[in-house]
Amino acid sequence: MHERGRFITLEGGEGVGKSSNLGWVVAWLESQGIEVVQTREPGGTPRAEAIRQLLLDPSPVEPLDADAELLLMFAARAQHLAQKIRPALARGAWVVCDRFTDATFAYQGGGRGIAEARIATLETFVQQGLAPDLTLLFDMTPEAARWRLETRLQTRGEQKDRFEREQTAFFDAVRRGYLKRALAEPERFAVIDAEPALKEVQAQLASVLQERVHAWR
Amino acid sequence: MHERGRFITLEGGEGVGKSSNLGWVVAWLESQGIEVVQTREPGGTPRAEAIRQLLLDPSPVEPLDADAELLLMFAARAQHLAQKIRPALARGAWVVCDRFTDATFAYQGGGRGIAEARIATLETFVQQGLAPDLTLLFDMTPEAARWRLETRLQTRGEQKDRFEREQTAFFDAVRRGYLKRALAEPERFAVIDAEPALKEVQAQLASVLQERVHAWR
Repeated sequence: MHERGRFITLEGGEGVGKSSNLGWVVAWLESQGIEVVQTREPGGTPRAEAIRQLLLDPSPVEPLDADAELLLMFAARAQHLAQKIRPALARGAWVVCDRFTDATFAYQGGGRGIAEARIATLETFVQQGLAPDLTLLFDMTPEAARWRLETRLQTRGEQKDRFEREQTAFFDAVRRGYLKRALAEPERFAVIDAEPALKEVQAQLASVLQERVHAWR
Repeated sequence: MHERGRFITLEGGEGVGKSSNLGWVVAWLESQGIEVVQTREPGGTPRAEAIRQLLLDPSPVEPLDADAELLLMFAARAQHLAQKIRPALARGAWVVCDRFTDATFAYQGGGRGIAEARIATLETFVQQGLAPDLTLLFDMTPEAARWRLETRLQTRGEQKDRFEREQTAFFDAVRRGYLKRALAEPERFAVIDAEPALKEVQAQLASVLQERVHAWR
């Protein structure tokens, strides 16, 4: 019997460089001979990605109710867990996921003001005890993050999705939501200062990964 | 201050003639001078109808996890309640809805075998006490219903959706799920024998509506 794989999540607001560093984290783990499944939320499987489209759709057809948003998020998560995350962990692969339930607490809780207890009800319902072993939280001031996001969208000529259209107060609340989670679970979280140059961010990541992987193997 | 409107749901398996009789129920209520909002689940608003598409999609891309299906159903319901049902009832209109939470207990509970307590958790989460005032349950043997469904699809040249592709054992379980609900809440439910000719079914409907509307006004 092999051991269950480790579950690592990357978290942070829009524009913090989380997605840019995901490939680097995966490559680092693979260089240690670990089988890694790279994925993201909301999404990660065909049906979960279809739910992601509904969540990000910025069309003004009608407002999306906050409870409906929350339930869609957990519907995508249930599908992702059943079809991809649980099978990978069970066969001993490690899973590196761009966002998970901490994002729901930060965005739908901190950002939209849904009570934490309501989110926790659905977390228990869907995850039944499964939680990340390590969460890398990419942190920077919302002003710096916004500047990066605007630059990226301009460079690529992309439109903002429904979340990216939110205002600064929303992103402040999301950041506070994340930091509150990190304070409550210091063992699981590693807070990465995401404002310096990429090389420096990656030095922080290497140091955290080195320590954890060493402890786990 | 006007009174809150009444909330009437129509329930039953595939092919029982529920949708054919919906217009008749609405017309009957309107003939009594009642403002009626006619709607359906899953769906009823643009974003909820988009969720319906995900639920009915029969493409073989990957199985839809039972929890994910349940959460999508309640996401659509939260959106429908927030954008259409609650506002209509609040202004005094009556709402006539083709399927509601009893269908979730019958299909996802009876049909898929999800524990009732899990469904009840989401029911409380989303509805916060709101329930139909009257539920018309269209009942017939699964054999008769299947024959009607096949005939209808053949006549219209339509493909079966993800639910219509299920086997007889599934529809048996759905029917038992519905009848169990009706037994548990005889005050709210009126069971309509849906096997006889349309005229006879409508005579049953008229008798139920007459009695209830009279008692309520």
